[in-house]
Amino acid sequence: MKELKDRIRRDGIIRAGNVLKVDSFLNHQMDIQLFEAMGQEFRRRFSDVEINKILTIEASGIGIACVVAQSFRVPVVFAKKTQTKNISGEVYTTKVESYTHGRIYDVIVSKEFLGKGDKVLLIDDFLANGKALEGLARLVKDSGAELVGAGIVIEKGFQIGGQTLRAQGIRVESLAIVDSMDETTGEIVFCE
Amino acid sequence: MKELKDRIRRDGIIRAGNVLKVDSFLNHQMDIQLFEAMGQEFRRRFSDVEINKILTIEASGIGIACVVAQSFRVPVVFAKKTQTKNISGEVYTTKVESYTHGRIYDVIVSKEFLGKGDKVLLIDDFLANGKALEGLARLVKDSGAELVGAGIVIEKGFQIGGQTLRAQGIRVESLAIVDSMDETTGEIVFCE
Repeated sequence: MKELKDRIRRDGIIRAGNVLKVDSFLNHQMDIQLFEAMGQEFRRRFSDVEINKILTIEASGIGIACVVAQSFRVPVVFAKKTQTKNISGEVYTTKVESYTHGRIYDVIVSKEFLGKGDKVLLIDDFLANGKALEGLARLVKDSGAELVGAGIVIEKGFQIGGQTLRAQGIRVESLAIVDSMDETTGEIVFCE
Repeated sequence: MKELKDRIRRDGIIRAGNVLKVDSFLNHQMDIQLFEAMGQEFRRRFSDVEINKILTIEASGIGIACVVAQSFRVPVVFAKKTQTKNISGEVYTTKVESYTHGRIYDVIVSKEFLGKGDKVLLIDDFLANGKALEGLARLVKDSGAELVGAGIVIEKGFQIGGQTLRAQGIRVESLAIVDSMDETTGEIVFCE
């Protein structure tokens, strides 16, 4: 998606350790008009399949998922990261390791809001090692819902996540796939 | 807002301790079309003032804020709850006590994304004791931005938050103000 790649080139900041900071428009401050364009692009890419629910994970996936959901006219459910299960009733739960925060979260979704008959699109801002997405895919499987695919804003193509998910047969559509980035020159190369 | 009150009456669940569960449409599963209608209503109520940024707090405020922002055509910033400051660069920070989770959070916003010239509308799902909103108001003040008002989906009129914020001169617009609710009968009375 050209508009997104241009924006990443313009406003993304590369930091040591393959960190790509896009918090001026994607995951701290959020450019809602860009999100609308992303929603239309995901809708175009997934136009051949039926989707009736979007699942994301707190926190930075939520805003993107809600705007994207407008293009699909479907509700959004966000999985909660928790170390204290404060959702009443029964939940689906799995464990996800966060490299960013260096710890393991319980990720939960209420059984009321995910189950048989749901045709689910996963939405998230980043795909790197794929742990969060794999966790969401497990929750979908456990619930008896159907996983239609995953829509990712930025995939780090040089990390293992995309390959792992696709090898599991999950359809992954990423709006920008970073092939390499250079902290010293600031250059970002995208996959075509 | 009649559509919202009807939805709360239909799908809200009252639990002991003045808990109102609305997680089937507001803050776990999210009805995006309802959010669009809420956005239009906030736009109508704040039509007399200039707003160029929306500030909310993770996690359940984010989805609402992003859809509401489409009615205002402005970006959204979400304040992060953290016990580990993993945002690089300088941040505005304040402490907020959470009654739900029984602990005190640091709430932070990067200085890059809030400051002089910003005319800020706060958006959140609930207003009860008002601690989160007061924290966001402090961040706005510390940054030198202008606080235009606060848009709340559900205010618990029988708790102190709304009164406290309004006494500080903050314009608070709540789409539904609960006057009382009865756990045994399931009855909810709204303020007019």
